[in-house]
Amino acid sequence: MTTSSLPLPDITLASTLFDTLRRDSFDGTGITRDSYGKGEQAAHDLIIRTARSLDLEVAVDGTRNLYVTLPGADRSAQCTMTGSHLDSVPAGGNYDGAAGVVAGMAVLAGWRAAGRTPPHDITVMGVRAEESTWFPYSYLGSKGAFGQIDRDAVLALQRSDTGRSLASHLADCGGDPATFGQAWLSPGRIARFVELHIEQGPVLIEAGLPVGVVTGIRGAIRYRDARALGTYAHSGAVPRRSRHDAVRAAALFIAAIDQDWEQLEHEGRDLVITFGKLSTNPAQHAFSKVAGEIDICMDIRSLDPQTLIEVDALLARRAAEIADLARVEFMLGERTGSAPAVMDPAIIAQLSKSAEAFGIPAMPMASGAGHDAAVFAQNGIPTGMIFVRNDRGSHNPEESMDLDDFALGARLLADALCPSGSALQER
Amino acid sequence: MTTSSLPLPDITLASTLFDTLRRDSFDGTGITRDSYGKGEQAAHDLIIRTARSLDLEVAVDGTRNLYVTLPGADRSAQCTMTGSHLDSVPAGGNYDGAAGVVAGMAVLAGWRAAGRTPPHDITVMGVRAEESTWFPYSYLGSKGAFGQIDRDAVLALQRSDTGRSLASHLADCGGDPATFGQAWLSPGRIARFVELHIEQGPVLIEAGLPVGVVTGIRGAIRYRDARALGTYAHSGAVPRRSRHDAVRAAALFIAAIDQDWEQLEHEGRDLVITFGKLSTNPAQHAFSKVAGEIDICMDIRSLDPQTLIEVDALLARRAAEIADLARVEFMLGERTGSAPAVMDPAIIAQLSKSAEAFGIPAMPMASGAGHDAAVFAQNGIPTGMIFVRNDRGSHNPEESMDLDDFALGARLLADALCPSGSALQER
Repeated sequence: MTTSSLPLPDITLASTLFDTLRRDSFDGTGITRDSYGKGEQAAHDLIIRTARSLDLEVAVDGTRNLYVTLPGADRSAQCTMTGSHLDSVPAGGNYDGAAGVVAGMAVLAGWRAAGRTPPHDITVMGVRAEESTWFPYSYLGSKGAFGQIDRDAVLALQRSDTGRSLASHLADCGGDPATFGQAWLSPGRIARFVELHIEQGPVLIEAGLPVGVVTGIRGAIRYRDARALGTYAHSGAVPRRSRHDAVRAAALFIAAIDQDWEQLEHEGRDLVITFGKLSTNPAQHAFSKVAGEIDICMDIRSLDPQTLIEVDALLARRAAEIADLARVEFMLGERTGSAPAVMDPAIIAQLSKSAEAFGIPAMPMASGAGHDAAVFAQNGIPTGMIFVRNDRGSHNPEESMDLDDFALGARLLADALCPSGSALQER
Repeated sequence: MTTSSLPLPDITLASTLFDTLRRDSFDGTGITRDSYGKGEQAAHDLIIRTARSLDLEVAVDGTRNLYVTLPGADRSAQCTMTGSHLDSVPAGGNYDGAAGVVAGMAVLAGWRAAGRTPPHDITVMGVRAEESTWFPYSYLGSKGAFGQIDRDAVLALQRSDTGRSLASHLADCGGDPATFGQAWLSPGRIARFVELHIEQGPVLIEAGLPVGVVTGIRGAIRYRDARALGTYAHSGAVPRRSRHDAVRAAALFIAAIDQDWEQLEHEGRDLVITFGKLSTNPAQHAFSKVAGEIDICMDIRSLDPQTLIEVDALLARRAAEIADLARVEFMLGERTGSAPAVMDPAIIAQLSKSAEAFGIPAMPMASGAGHDAAVFAQNGIPTGMIFVRNDRGSHNPEESMDLDDFALGARLLADALCPSGSALQER
């Protein structure tokens, strides 16, 4: 027998779940599922209700991650896992994160509908707080599941919109600070983790392919609170030589780093650099004032750890140069980030082979965005990722995934979650 | 007889007025006297109370500008005028604008204290809404006094903080839309207008001189609502070649214009260029998003009309170049501005001569900032300006004028407001 006889994912259920998620989290502009807030919690509640209706096991860890398990024939065997996050950025799209959880639920529902039992447990995880725009911390939920966060520091983090602590938001979701961040997952008990996610860039669209097999996940360096400090002054009366212009300094800095990026890319380095937020102080700025301060937000990503180190040094060097030139003070502020992650070669090979066997057009590709799968990989668990084609990017209300493409990705996922022939036994 | 026997300004009164103004308009950070708001109105009320206690004539025009007049011996003779504005930028300083009104009141109080009558009326004007950070319009009050504004368009302007129309704020100040903007001043009835103002740059501080005699006022070109529009996208997943990054575009634009400025200054042009406000959209931006939009505010000033025209063309050219390079759309938006103004040579000569006669160290200098005096000059009225040394610039809470310097400037002002020997006659 071949893996093609595994139960097919339940795409009708997936479609219903996507519709309900959209209805529950539409904010008037886009989709908002705020981490440890009402939006994310509604998505968790929906998945729990669905799991119970399918007679699946439900568990929640101290970090409030959700685990839905289809029991296997041998409950003591290593399980396979899938899943993704259920939060979204503010005014984001419906598929970023949720598609991975919905795909997992569709796979389990497929097993149930066929009345069959896999040889080992298959678990779908609903990860908390992956979108660190809410809490400034990378992979908060998945690191919490492995007991790899500094509990007290993380509980004290303030959410960017409410200013309230994570501890306070946690209570709203029924959590307990005492068990928050306690390890729930044991790497030795997990045979593999495979995450399905929409592609967040235009690579599959441009290639005309429905799915991609991910080879690695870019790591990141972030300075979310960088600032340039100059001196407020009259815009008409202070000559060029006497200015300490924070806006000019920021512009020269960004332009210099942009040139560096162009050069590094020309050398063949994998690199993206983004200044996503840039703002003078609304309480002080005016059209008739030289700006005395500006906030700058930087996000640098690469598959190559060495490139991240080099760009980090460049940021400091350019900041010092521009501070001198423009007579301002640069403060890069706290650095956060994540290490690049490599996907498991055996999983990459299986996904590619299955795609070929099923006639699904696919290509290998890097993930520019970070994903919870990186945390599983860093914990030594064989990890893979499936990308589904998605138009107009993500982190915006215009993201657009075709359900037919999703169905192809989910079929590859079902295959990856039951690699053994024993998966085909009747319950 | 020489002009040195004119009554000396009442600096004690001036000191008290400054203290009261500060007390009435301190906002916790700096001084806020909002145009057509409570802060500006409180200053007008203070000057009216002071005028009445000195038995001076008080009048208010349809634009709600204030006129305080010391009647002269010949009421039919051309008057002399002084004055400045009583509003401030948000969180500004106590002297920008108010010093000119206080100096005028000190001059009139000096005449009263000496029991003497000038040969002609001397009028101190409290001008409305000079700080166009509140209502986006240059010289709103003084243009209104000459009947030179488009009444309906100006009444519809929204104040930057409240979003309420000028018509609505006008009502709060006892104004009537029907008479708003009606001409009050007749240029033929005004022999001269001389405005005292703190210097808003570091020129006098750097030269070590207490006062400056202004030779001209820079004109301005302004784009308050320029924007760059790109496309929001995931910061990690969209490669450089596929980006439409609004922040990158703004930075390259500002850096390009900065280079142009350096070149033009090198050629000897009089020019200052300021991007005082720069901001991505707080409702949409995130550290993990390529920015899809950014607001840019530009203020370009020069004594030379031709330079303003050339820089305006450069802005359009650079915007088009960067739009092409960064694949974004640039919208410069509405252009506002003001023409450069030349001060009257006879007044310049008299102020310089008086300063020398009184032993007051002074220097001729350009005004980098715009002032209501420009409107008087553009109406063909012989116009002059006196600058008083001021540390740490203006438009910020740190501005700092020494009362001794102010007294020297006020003495020059008293002289300029009564140029004839007949000023020395006893009442």
